[in-house]
Amino acid sequence: MAETRTETDSLGTIDIPAERYWGPQTERARRLFRIGSERFPPGLIRAVGLHKWACAEANGRLGELPADLVGPIKQAAEEIADGRRDEEFPLPVWQTGSGTQTNMNANEVISNRANEILGSPLGARKPVHPNDHVNRGQSSNDNFPTMMHIAAAEAVEGRLLPALGRLHAALWKRSEEWADIIKIGRTHMMDAVPVTLGQEFAAWARQVELGQERLRGVMPRLLLLPQGGTAVGTGLNRHPDFDRVFCEIVADRTGLAFAPNPNKFEGMGAHDAFVELQGAMNTVAVSLNKLGNDIRLLGSGPRSGLAELVVPADGLSSSIMPGKTNPTQSEALTMVCAQVMGNTTTVTFAGAQSFLELNVFKPVIIQAVLQSATLLADAAASFAEFMVLKLEPNREKIAENLGKSLMLVTALNPHIGYDKAVRIGKKALAENLTLRDAAEQLGFVTPEDFDRWVRPETMIAPGASLGD
Amino acid sequence: MAETRTETDSLGTIDIPAERYWGPQTERARRLFRIGSERFPPGLIRAVGLHKWACAEANGRLGELPADLVGPIKQAAEEIADGRRDEEFPLPVWQTGSGTQTNMNANEVISNRANEILGSPLGARKPVHPNDHVNRGQSSNDNFPTMMHIAAAEAVEGRLLPALGRLHAALWKRSEEWADIIKIGRTHMMDAVPVTLGQEFAAWARQVELGQERLRGVMPRLLLLPQGGTAVGTGLNRHPDFDRVFCEIVADRTGLAFAPNPNKFEGMGAHDAFVELQGAMNTVAVSLNKLGNDIRLLGSGPRSGLAELVVPADGLSSSIMPGKTNPTQSEALTMVCAQVMGNTTTVTFAGAQSFLELNVFKPVIIQAVLQSATLLADAAASFAEFMVLKLEPNREKIAENLGKSLMLVTALNPHIGYDKAVRIGKKALAENLTLRDAAEQLGFVTPEDFDRWVRPETMIAPGASLGD
Amino acid sequence: MAETRTETDSLGTIDIPAERYWGPQTERARRLFRIGSERFPPGLIRAVGLHKWACAEANGRLGELPADLVGPIKQAAEEIADGRRDEEFPLPVWQTGSGTQTNMNANEVISNRANEILGSPLGARKPVHPNDHVNRGQSSNDNFPTMMHIAAAEAVEGRLLPALGRLHAALWKRSEEWADIIKIGRTHMMDAVPVTLGQEFAAWARQVELGQERLRGVMPRLLLLPQGGTAVGTGLNRHPDFDRVFCEIVADRTGLAFAPNPNKFEGMGAHDAFVELQGAMNTVAVSLNKLGNDIRLLGSGPRSGLAELVVPADGLSSSIMPGKTNPTQSEALTMVCAQVMGNTTTVTFAGAQSFLELNVFKPVIIQAVLQSATLLADAAASFAEFMVLKLEPNREKIAENLGKSLMLVTALNPHIGYDKAVRIGKKALAENLTLRDAAEQLGFVTPEDFDRWVRPETMIAPGASLGD
Amino acid sequence: MAETRTETDSLGTIDIPAERYWGPQTERARRLFRIGSERFPPGLIRAVGLHKWACAEANGRLGELPADLVGPIKQAAEEIADGRRDEEFPLPVWQTGSGTQTNMNANEVISNRANEILGSPLGARKPVHPNDHVNRGQSSNDNFPTMMHIAAAEAVEGRLLPALGRLHAALWKRSEEWADIIKIGRTHMMDAVPVTLGQEFAAWARQVELGQERLRGVMPRLLLLPQGGTAVGTGLNRHPDFDRVFCEIVADRTGLAFAPNPNKFEGMGAHDAFVELQGAMNTVAVSLNKLGNDIRLLGSGPRSGLAELVVPADGLSSSIMPGKTNPTQSEALTMVCAQVMGNTTTVTFAGAQSFLELNVFKPVIIQAVLQSATLLADAAASFAEFMVLKLEPNREKIAENLGKSLMLVTALNPHIGYDKAVRIGKKALAENLTLRDAAEQLGFVTPEDFDRWVRPETMIAPGASLGD
Repeated sequence: MAETRTETDSLGTIDIPAERYWGPQTERARRLFRIGSERFPPGLIRAVGLHKWACAEANGRLGELPADLVGPIKQAAEEIADGRRDEEFPLPVWQTGSGTQTNMNANEVISNRANEILGSPLGARKPVHPNDHVNRGQSSNDNFPTMMHIAAAEAVEGRLLPALGRLHAALWKRSEEWADIIKIGRTHMMDAVPVTLGQEFAAWARQVELGQERLRGVMPRLLLLPQGGTAVGTGLNRHPDFDRVFCEIVADRTGLAFAPNPNKFEGMGAHDAFVELQGAMNTVAVSLNKLGNDIRLLGSGPRSGLAELVVPADGLSSSIMPGKTNPTQSEALTMVCAQVMGNTTTVTFAGAQSFLELNVFKPVIIQAVLQSATLLADAAASFAEFMVLKLEPNREKIAENLGKSLMLVTALNPHIGYDKAVRIGKKALAENLTLRDAAEQLGFVTPEDFDRWVRPETMIAPGASLGD
Repeated sequence: MAETRTETDSLGTIDIPAERYWGPQTERARRLFRIGSERFPPGLIRAVGLHKWACAEANGRLGELPADLVGPIKQAAEEIADGRRDEEFPLPVWQTGSGTQTNMNANEVISNRANEILGSPLGARKPVHPNDHVNRGQSSNDNFPTMMHIAAAEAVEGRLLPALGRLHAALWKRSEEWADIIKIGRTHMMDAVPVTLGQEFAAWARQVELGQERLRGVMPRLLLLPQGGTAVGTGLNRHPDFDRVFCEIVADRTGLAFAPNPNKFEGMGAHDAFVELQGAMNTVAVSLNKLGNDIRLLGSGPRSGLAELVVPADGLSSSIMPGKTNPTQSEALTMVCAQVMGNTTTVTFAGAQSFLELNVFKPVIIQAVLQSATLLADAAASFAEFMVLKLEPNREKIAENLGKSLMLVTALNPHIGYDKAVRIGKKALAENLTLRDAAEQLGFVTPEDFDRWVRPETMIAPGASLGD
Repeated sequence: MAETRTETDSLGTIDIPAERYWGPQTERARRLFRIGSERFPPGLIRAVGLHKWACAEANGRLGELPADLVGPIKQAAEEIADGRRDEEFPLPVWQTGSGTQTNMNANEVISNRANEILGSPLGARKPVHPNDHVNRGQSSNDNFPTMMHIAAAEAVEGRLLPALGRLHAALWKRSEEWADIIKIGRTHMMDAVPVTLGQEFAAWARQVELGQERLRGVMPRLLLLPQGGTAVGTGLNRHPDFDRVFCEIVADRTGLAFAPNPNKFEGMGAHDAFVELQGAMNTVAVSLNKLGNDIRLLGSGPRSGLAELVVPADGLSSSIMPGKTNPTQSEALTMVCAQVMGNTTTVTFAGAQSFLELNVFKPVIIQAVLQSATLLADAAASFAEFMVLKLEPNREKIAENLGKSLMLVTALNPHIGYDKAVRIGKKALAENLTLRDAAEQLGFVTPEDFDRWVRPETMIAPGASLGD
Repeated sequence: MAETRTETDSLGTIDIPAERYWGPQTERARRLFRIGSERFPPGLIRAVGLHKWACAEANGRLGELPADLVGPIKQAAEEIADGRRDEEFPLPVWQTGSGTQTNMNANEVISNRANEILGSPLGARKPVHPNDHVNRGQSSNDNFPTMMHIAAAEAVEGRLLPALGRLHAALWKRSEEWADIIKIGRTHMMDAVPVTLGQEFAAWARQVELGQERLRGVMPRLLLLPQGGTAVGTGLNRHPDFDRVFCEIVADRTGLAFAPNPNKFEGMGAHDAFVELQGAMNTVAVSLNKLGNDIRLLGSGPRSGLAELVVPADGLSSSIMPGKTNPTQSEALTMVCAQVMGNTTTVTFAGAQSFLELNVFKPVIIQAVLQSATLLADAAASFAEFMVLKLEPNREKIAENLGKSLMLVTALNPHIGYDKAVRIGKKALAENLTLRDAAEQLGFVTPEDFDRWVRPETMIAPGASLGD
């Protein structure tokens, strides 16, 4: 049985594990919310520390805190931002919907730690008081959403965009390397006219690039912080300049252009910015799902599938089928996409439940958003490294598949018209002929014209096949 | 029994209702797809006509069509764009996933009608041929997504943004009219510190304004047209300048800055732009859901609810409870939001199923997107007119609710500290006292200080309540 | 300009198109809800008529209505049930969330029509009064959800289950016909050990059969009618036996075992039964999506895909690629699945928004549920007829794909162990050998043993390949 | 730097942390899947151990394993089932979609541990071989989904159903205690006719009870195990009786009636049973969302809301508003519901992506399903204990709200007709009169009749108010 200390706040007395910095509010919450095992991710705890550090700095500059308390509060907050106090945040995601308990958790840990630095015992509540000093000019109601914005913006800028950059680079590299490999195109999953393998990779690369563009398009609203709204958006009990100074400090420290939300009611009562961000990530998931699927499809085989790409042998195998190689990275990636799509429903529902001055689904929103950003980032980087850069084209199979296609007949349309071209294609299929033979037998095209008009290398760009 | 004519194309012979302009492909599809009753909305059929009109014009300019055919084809297409041929499009949404049947439907209607203009009977397939002329340099695979982009862009610019503009104006008007009505704020649905009624309306207005911003942010990608990709994205069989000229014509006619998608594979094989647009509309739905909910909540009563707003008597009533007035516009609005959220799942799933060179969920995607835009537009306009502009504040109830609140005690924090303020609040609640009495009895605040510090009118902006 | 008559009810006076049976409540609603173009489907309007017919009959039996009014009311209601008054229901889905306007629409149409039968002019409101007589002992709040239950139960029993039955029969027929065609199995989309084509069809058939089982599992709760709850669930103003008698009448007429919901508050304040039903249909959609996808995949080609199934030539073609046959029924089917999945989100959201004594998302819920049932039914029947029963196996390609597979090596595991089998498989792949040659070269298996152990026909059931 | 041992399998050589029981397949997977931080929950790892224990037992009984290996394998598996080897399962959810790596992880840990028991060093691969013995007659493809079924069935039966039982009991207790408290009902959130507080709690209890019924309805399909399908569903390489014996053993050990899936292709290639189960949990989430919302709404206040329930003071408070009590358990509960709804989208998408013989979204499916079951269970139990059983009615406010309601006028309908009742209600609202005064002034009802007819206590059940 662990030792405890007894602590008292305005709402009562409670026993707390002796070595912990947290206080009565955290301890009570710990007992009231025994739901699931999900904890906030490191990115959020970092934002909590950074946020409290910036609040102390701002209040110090504005003369709202006793000068001698600013340093210890900042030091304690910094320890949280550094990841050294993770174990002091024991509360689950499934708590009060405002994140109040996590804000109070931070207030308590910081005040106790700052008091320790200043020579007071844990639980003293002075000289540093969790509400009057650490939470000075703040409310959970503007703090927690501000922490959410900071954590999400850092996740997008610091993790997701760079990972998409790596994936884009890998795809683009392949598109250049394989620009000259002409292969069969497929629509409706059926044989169609030719494309190059490079064009396929370039299209996926373009999707990733547009995904980055979409994410960047969300940033202007993600960078608007509701800090300064305090309890309901009005800014009651805070210094008139607090929001501006706070944002300058956070922007300076993170390198991200955070600015005060001009309508703090909007930033606290609604979380549309996160619904929007999740929507952008959902679009990225849709793009990556196609990428994972397409490569799985082109890599199907190795012998009895499309088999145009060779999936890398990654040292993993079936537990029963000896030596079987699977597109495992496609599977990890598309599972991540499924999770992100589900998170979109979660964030949509949670965002839509905003009531009056406060949305009280904050923890589940930020949990889903940060999970989405992290998983997309990790999966994109993993797919780039272990799949895209390790793929090889199966040139033999590509040539075979291209050569067999009946859809090369399309190049005849401008010369003999659609209806005659149909008859050539149908005859070739029915009688198992080459298109060239079918065309000749029908008397629609001479072999010489056929050879001049039906050339895959002129079919991969506009105009080339139109001329004589 | 209707009369029929017999028509033959390269795939066979079939009977068609004699008076119809459609041809064999449409007739066969009509018999093969007897699924549901959903038809494409007028906005899409208009885009179909406009698209075919612009194709003929572009091909004419580029010398790709016999000069004497251009005029009749354009005339026939214009009739579709004008809404005069709606009954010639009998196919359901649930058809081929490329929209091929609707493209062929257009080709057939236009060729038959153009031939009629030129003096040929229906079914002649000449001088105007549905594929060789009407579909010249095109494929369903680039046509249909281009029609989707045109229809969606027009719906957003021509219908949704203006409707949101009306809603924003109505909310903003109210926020100014009621800027001075101080009322109780609510967080966690519980009594909190004061706000103004104007601040509440301004926050909703801000959400709507940001929704417009989000929609506009999607436009750059929505305006990129895949026209010119033809069958698989390569542009096989089309004039090298066709995509550019086509976009210029459409841009000129619609006033929207359409431009060629630089990567047509992306625009045909994936429909991320629609997933993104639907995500933006989903965010708008989330915003409007809060608006509808909040007004329903503040208007609850008329006697035993919050009752701070008076919901307009709209002449509708309960079928059993005499004279009962309900927030019917909130209900219509939030039901629309539920539909839009569901459409987001539909579009996400359909977008994620892209395979290789062609996404074959095009019809369901555009159906969901256009429904979302239309419903949001109509519901926003309806809510502005029949709810926002007809609401009245219940000043008596607002004053009563504000006066009773215990959370005014928050203004004491900066003066006496959080812990003492808690004790005042708890005593007042437990003993059913006013805060002022509780404060005095505890000896924490004199009545004079209380009256100076606890004034709702200084609590609705930062700083005002901090000073002496 | 149409002629109008002027009608007055307790809430005012209004002009109504002269020839219409509807009254002031309907007319006002028509003007207040100009949102979208969605109307309730015929299945719901039928349920409205049937419901009102049963109410009149029940009230007649219980002596709650003047005897001479019962007949005319029933006659008028019957006309609605028969589909002869569809044009008298002009209101959109996007109305009051209780469906009150549609219930009042029915009350007004029936009272006017009954009065007409009795010799009174439209708008007389006597001898038959829309509320006092047609709505006797009822409220929209119990009427509309009861109509929803009736319509949904009829859609499931009368339309969806039979259509799934047809699909199941078609799949089962194929599974028996093709029970002996041994083919390559695929896991992770990669070549795996053999299965029979019959086993593949039997698995899809089993999914459909389980879907029917799931739908039937929902019926017990779908058959519980909230009728009798009147305004809030208590049953105020209705005869104590009304609920029981009503259900007997409806059960007798429909042949479905409807019974009174023992807790009418649950049936009016929540619509969990519809969320559950939609969840079952969502599961069916998931099953059918696999079916559509798998057949599309196996039918890919015709020359450069898996090409083990021959997709039926349905007379439709690409607008540019001559003679191209596509799996159009798979596409229609999977688009329907996408819609049903989106509807699940809609119904979930709408169901979750229940407040206190009344869920006010009733119209959007029943719209989504009935659309889901109808689309799944139509698409399943269409897929059975135009795809499953028209497919053909490509025996040559099936044999070729099977013969090439390296995974037949799995049959060696019990004889030589997994590790040696891996080495055989890897050698065969790397050196492009047959498994038999690789096994012999490695000295692990003699050709004779190989031929005895590696026989696809013994690999399609347990045990057969284990023995010597 | 940790010490390593070098291990070799058929696919190569790799260094593994010296003290770990896992082997090369696990180690390679650990390096290839660095995605996110999500690990399988304890419930799944328990099922893994239990499954492997039962496989060894079954193979032992059937003579498929050397007798001396059965015991050590079972002992090693038991240690996993007991939770003593959790740290030996380092792989993330985001791995191969078949769960192959986790199955191989188990094979490797068990073979190494069994070999250790038998005196061989880690990495020896003998006498116990991970594939040939631990995985005997099995494949990841039937093992992992079987583990999923076992874990999910145990979670539903052992955790979710009991927790819902506790919630139901708490709600039912309240419904009985407060059966006599008559209060205002609310529809459309507006004042309506009376109900009892007991009726409200009974309705919520009924929803929970039906939720249990729904979950039980899923069990027949959840209890069907695909074990025995091995690689593709055919049962290649396993003993003909293995599936039956395995299920008997697992049923015996768990007390749950597991049985062999008669169509193993269905159980491996599709995971409709989990989509169905998730749909049932989604319905439960919808029910609980209403519960959490309704109580939040009735508990709004404490002074300026509906305030009919007193939300328990839980010792938590706002960080700025002193002494504010919030419905924190409602917030945790409804956030959980949002997560479960999102998981439904995830499982739907993942289930719909089944391809041919194997669904490769298994890990994300079971992760979402087990998270949903756990969160719903924990949140339901928490809500029962900390909210339902701690609520108190505010009888004073309840009486006040009831007394003010204008909707009591509904009781007059049967006596004076709907139209006159409307006029009474409208007059009372407009002139701020009591209904009684308005009725008298209009001359429609004498005060004596009014008092006899309008009695809330007769309005809470059918029939009572109809008579004279």
